[in-house]
Amino acid sequence: MQLTLHSPLDMHLHLRDGQMLQTVAPLSAKSFAGALVMPNLVPPVTTKEMVQSYKERIKEAMGDEVFEPYMTLFFRPEYDYAFLADIKDSILAIKLYPAGITTNSEDGVDNFSVEALAPTLEAMSELGIPLCVHGETNGFVMDREAEFIPIYERIAKRFPDLKIIMEHITTKDAVDALMKYENLYATITLHHLYITLDDVAGGLLQPHLFCKPIAKRPEDRMALRKVALMAHEKVMFGSDSAPHPRDKKEAPGCAAGVFTAPIALPALAQLFEAAGVLENLQKFVSDNAQNIYGITPPKKEVKLVKEPFEVPSSYNNVVPMFAGESLAWRIAGGI
Amino acid sequence: MQLTLHSPLDMHLHLRDGQMLQTVAPLSAKSFAGALVMPNLVPPVTTKEMVQSYKERIKEAMGDEVFEPYMTLFFRPEYDYAFLADIKDSILAIKLYPAGITTNSEDGVDNFSVEALAPTLEAMSELGIPLCVHGETNGFVMDREAEFIPIYERIAKRFPDLKIIMEHITTKDAVDALMKYENLYATITLHHLYITLDDVAGGLLQPHLFCKPIAKRPEDRMALRKVALMAHEKVMFGSDSAPHPRDKKEAPGCAAGVFTAPIALPALAQLFEAAGVLENLQKFVSDNAQNIYGITPPKKEVKLVKEPFEVPSSYNNVVPMFAGESLAWRIAGGI
Repeated sequence: MQLTLHSPLDMHLHLRDGQMLQTVAPLSAKSFAGALVMPNLVPPVTTKEMVQSYKERIKEAMGDEVFEPYMTLFFRPEYDYAFLADIKDSILAIKLYPAGITTNSEDGVDNFSVEALAPTLEAMSELGIPLCVHGETNGFVMDREAEFIPIYERIAKRFPDLKIIMEHITTKDAVDALMKYENLYATITLHHLYITLDDVAGGLLQPHLFCKPIAKRPEDRMALRKVALMAHEKVMFGSDSAPHPRDKKEAPGCAAGVFTAPIALPALAQLFEAAGVLENLQKFVSDNAQNIYGITPPKKEVKLVKEPFEVPSSYNNVVPMFAGESLAWRIAGGI
Repeated sequence: MQLTLHSPLDMHLHLRDGQMLQTVAPLSAKSFAGALVMPNLVPPVTTKEMVQSYKERIKEAMGDEVFEPYMTLFFRPEYDYAFLADIKDSILAIKLYPAGITTNSEDGVDNFSVEALAPTLEAMSELGIPLCVHGETNGFVMDREAEFIPIYERIAKRFPDLKIIMEHITTKDAVDALMKYENLYATITLHHLYITLDDVAGGLLQPHLFCKPIAKRPEDRMALRKVALMAHEKVMFGSDSAPHPRDKKEAPGCAAGVFTAPIALPALAQLFEAAGVLENLQKFVSDNAQNIYGITPPKKEVKLVKEPFEVPSSYNNVVPMFAGESLAWRIAGGI
């Protein structure tokens, strides 16, 4: 059995920088025609020059592969209309992090009153720049996403023309909220479609599955699967693939993040096929994102074949999800 | 400020065997006059000979310290009256593990119908042998204890003369159930009084705080603190101190268990003092257990002084809770 995906997109990707960028960029390029690249470098990507030079470094790391890095800017409440109008053509979206909520987010937002955010959000709305949000409070780890929903709702109501992407949603509550406002959209990761907290901490502790937002309850995963597998037009694939060196993951104080870029399409094909909806995968991994963001990615066919794929134990020093296990699909030509 | 505890007891302790026993036994002996020793060795402790020889090895490892190891037997549904009558004087209780639910519990019970358990439980009830239970199902990790409560209730109702100890309770649901049946009692650990899931997986992942049952929600910790700090007569201290070598804790597939034996009394004193109920600590760490089990431990005074205690980064190759941190109390004479 074969499956050809047309210009698959990963709408939430961490490529890092330096040596790590060299390791992971080619792996995304083998699977995807493009990706929305997160700006949480150290320091975060906050200027046009930083966006442009980061994009250049990404393109270099991609080599000859057809791959469009869609760039994001790290949200700051002081961005004004003139700044945003100038940078608009260099980015696809702006990513908002609550301060300290995940890897390299220390410079994020700590005041979520609409007044504090309004000038920037108004300008974004007028200029048509989508807002991507890591929607978690600093509350109890299982409640953080649900507690953030009123903030999504306030922003969605106040700025009805602003496209808001609820990034890497993990709960039934988030799925429900998503459906209530026309201008809310969401990315869903591979790992949140596969795992619950049981897989992280229900047996032995599994640091390579530790991520933020943390994987939730079985009924949450069910809600995510439901909208992903039907390729609901409001959701799109965003891997949140987040590489950390093995020694940072396999030690106390393990960093949050699951590395899925090289195995995402085979694992998605396996999941969609098992649910009998393989035909929906094209929408989930590309068409929906094209519609939501109004983009036309470079033409690229990625062929999957239903043959066992023995997932490597690591890619350089980065351990992927399903390391050492076998997936039912592989990318033709290998990865 | 000083505090003298009279014959403090740890009513749920893992001492392991071999080299690990040599490492950890003297640390418990410096803090406690006795402990209820768990039987989940490999193979589990299931005969009188195993109980007696394990007790000998423990006493040897304790050296000259005054310390009574109260022994337990690993529950098996095939134990009959004659077997139990013969072993009664060698043990204080029998510990029931659901199969596969925690470290070295593979040989545990997999059929919780009252019929399957009745012959053994009837004999225990007649002979006055208490039943200690690791009360978790194999359901979703945050629900396992709550899901087990109907089993506690069935056994408590069917065997009203059997003393049942709900081991290491972690939830408000368990506290509520405990209060409903006269023959239910509970141990509470140090770590479940201190931490929630946030401390394990809310920031960076902390394997040394990973345990079973997993730490739960803030409102659960609150319910545990309430009954522990008032030294409710149905609850007693059981550390569930569970040593693993550092390399087993600091690697993927980290084993469950928090090592608290050497720091338990200082950390408890700190918690009880902060709540203004230091006078209740004696009941929580000794008197309640004496009443529940009907035991008179060896006389032993353990003096705590309110002076900073810099917790070692490890005891041999075992990392304690609060490693490298400072506690407000220390055991006079040091540990």
